[in-house]
Amino acid sequence: MSDISWSDWLAEQAADREASGLRRALVPRGPADRVVDLAGNDYLGLSGHPAVRQGAADAALVWGAGAGASRLVTGTLDLHAQLEAELAAYAGQPAALVLSTGYHANLAVVSALVDRDCHVISDAHIHASLVDAVRLSRAGLTVTPHSDVDAVRDALASGGGERTIVLAESIYSVLGDEGPLVELAALCEEHGALLVVDEAHGLGVHGAGVVQRLGLAGLPHVIVTMTLSKSLGSQGGAVLASPEIVDHLVNRARPFIFDTALAPAATGAALAALRVLRESPELPAVVRRRVLDLAGSLGVEPPAGAVLSVPMPSPVVAVAAQAAALEQSVRVGCFRPPSVPDGVSRLRITVSAGISDDDWARASDVLVAVVKEHA
Amino acid sequence: MSDISWSDWLAEQAADREASGLRRALVPRGPADRVVDLAGNDYLGLSGHPAVRQGAADAALVWGAGAGASRLVTGTLDLHAQLEAELAAYAGQPAALVLSTGYHANLAVVSALVDRDCHVISDAHIHASLVDAVRLSRAGLTVTPHSDVDAVRDALASGGGERTIVLAESIYSVLGDEGPLVELAALCEEHGALLVVDEAHGLGVHGAGVVQRLGLAGLPHVIVTMTLSKSLGSQGGAVLASPEIVDHLVNRARPFIFDTALAPAATGAALAALRVLRESPELPAVVRRRVLDLAGSLGVEPPAGAVLSVPMPSPVVAVAAQAAALEQSVRVGCFRPPSVPDGVSRLRITVSAGISDDDWARASDVLVAVVKEHA
Repeated sequence: MSDISWSDWLAEQAADREASGLRRALVPRGPADRVVDLAGNDYLGLSGHPAVRQGAADAALVWGAGAGASRLVTGTLDLHAQLEAELAAYAGQPAALVLSTGYHANLAVVSALVDRDCHVISDAHIHASLVDAVRLSRAGLTVTPHSDVDAVRDALASGGGERTIVLAESIYSVLGDEGPLVELAALCEEHGALLVVDEAHGLGVHGAGVVQRLGLAGLPHVIVTMTLSKSLGSQGGAVLASPEIVDHLVNRARPFIFDTALAPAATGAALAALRVLRESPELPAVVRRRVLDLAGSLGVEPPAGAVLSVPMPSPVVAVAAQAAALEQSVRVGCFRPPSVPDGVSRLRITVSAGISDDDWARASDVLVAVVKEHA
Repeated sequence: MSDISWSDWLAEQAADREASGLRRALVPRGPADRVVDLAGNDYLGLSGHPAVRQGAADAALVWGAGAGASRLVTGTLDLHAQLEAELAAYAGQPAALVLSTGYHANLAVVSALVDRDCHVISDAHIHASLVDAVRLSRAGLTVTPHSDVDAVRDALASGGGERTIVLAESIYSVLGDEGPLVELAALCEEHGALLVVDEAHGLGVHGAGVVQRLGLAGLPHVIVTMTLSKSLGSQGGAVLASPEIVDHLVNRARPFIFDTALAPAATGAALAALRVLRESPELPAVVRRRVLDLAGSLGVEPPAGAVLSVPMPSPVVAVAAQAAALEQSVRVGCFRPPSVPDGVSRLRITVSAGISDDDWARASDVLVAVVKEHA
């Protein structure tokens, strides 16, 4: 007999959440609500772009609703190969591998390359998917303070594994700041380590990505992971790396091998979005201008990406501020423990190029008033 | 400096694969190749069903190409809620939660419920996603021999954790056999344990699933996980369970919380497929008849699901047999280490209701000849 019944344990867990104001519930939305959405990650507004919607619809009609099998069985479509070729070319990388989520991309790259003999050096703010990936690998782990290059240098110098890998992001999700990628890439080269950079919040908002802008694309020791579900407005993820690493992932990455391939609609949509992005260099510029304007109005540091992070005094006040904005038809995100790396609750405001100038102006006014009242 | 360079390590790994005949590569296919596909998992042929293709296309046109955010932020659409309600009703379960892959469904349920204080009792043949989920949980683990009820009884009696969870599948992927679910559910009830049943290969092929057929649906200690990418012809996964467990997953399951919601097209396709399945009870019967016929012709034990497993003498012969079938335009799967639980390479032939009677007759003849030549 178990020591505690499952139903008692579930009830205890639920009561704890309720007591600490952390209970979360799903709120479904309709297809055309009148709310201005500054909470999602559709940074360039491409999820709703006519060519991208059509790319999804056409792919489903031509290829079917699903890929029908895992990539190594019969799930690899010409469409996947096309997307991989164009993603790699756009980001200046030698090869790419598409997976069914960004989470899977991170799980795949770490779990296939890293084993117990490795030393993982991880920034304290990396995404949950990379944290889980490291847990899966059972490697020795050093967590370094956020964007602390000296700490990474010390960890590299300490040895501690047969092979070493450093995990970072180009733009961090919660604070919206840019990682010190040039310094990290140089340190990794010097020490024979690999650098994995998650570009989930960088690619698109920074055109072909921060790694590309910094001249680090194509370096054999720099691996990029990305998502197709943020700036590209679709679903899925990808790893951009050398052909040797992609071949290794195809053969060894369990979250790639044992998973149905990305559906045709999501693949076709991402391909259409990538083509729109290539032909619309003004989209990232719109995001950048709006970020700077709103950061100025709110009196917060302008972030490197499209996410404005506004600290709130408590989880309860953060929820109240979010509700006040929603009452005026502006939806923003709210980050509370355990989704924040430092325990500070925040409004998380994401800027999108997909909002009309009028809606944007109104939403900005609403947010300035709400933040003034609650911060 | 690392002890071995990454490039040397990658080259060693690639050479090992090559030497053991285990190197795998991706082979893209076109939208309308003339090959009869008996390798995928589109068991009911619904990926290509006109209503399902249209369900995907319409959802992308109405809702956009992506959900734009994680489920708890703004990614939950009315469409997800609708699919969850209809899935639960169809399978006779109180509640459902849709995730972006079946892999995520398994990772979510185990990683949210199980911690270091738990005892996990796992069948030796469970899917890679459940294996990884247990690794993530860091729980104490007992692996029991395949479908060995006595071993599960002993493991339950041994205690070993504050709470206990048993992991099984309704239809196992590689051998195609059915797990002893009635016995496992009774043992789990007796010992206050939870039973997780992966219905990836059961739901659809067995109508509303094996759990439902056996009268186990709706029992509070039985949790079902499933995929939307096999019988439902789309992409994604789901957990079917009590509202208390679903609420717990919404609040605690990292692969749910930190992942973009399932795209509208995949959600709409799964919903359309579910409706076709509800109205077409003959589809599972077609699969069953074809399975029995082909098993008879090949002289193998008829499986419980739609997967015929034909042992081959070696990985190399398995690949040769697969190639011989493909030369005659019949595509079958080939399972080799490390994708098989027992080290035996196999042809894996999946039966689908989506193939015409003529194509089916021809494919059967080809396979009988190929297996005779290679087994």
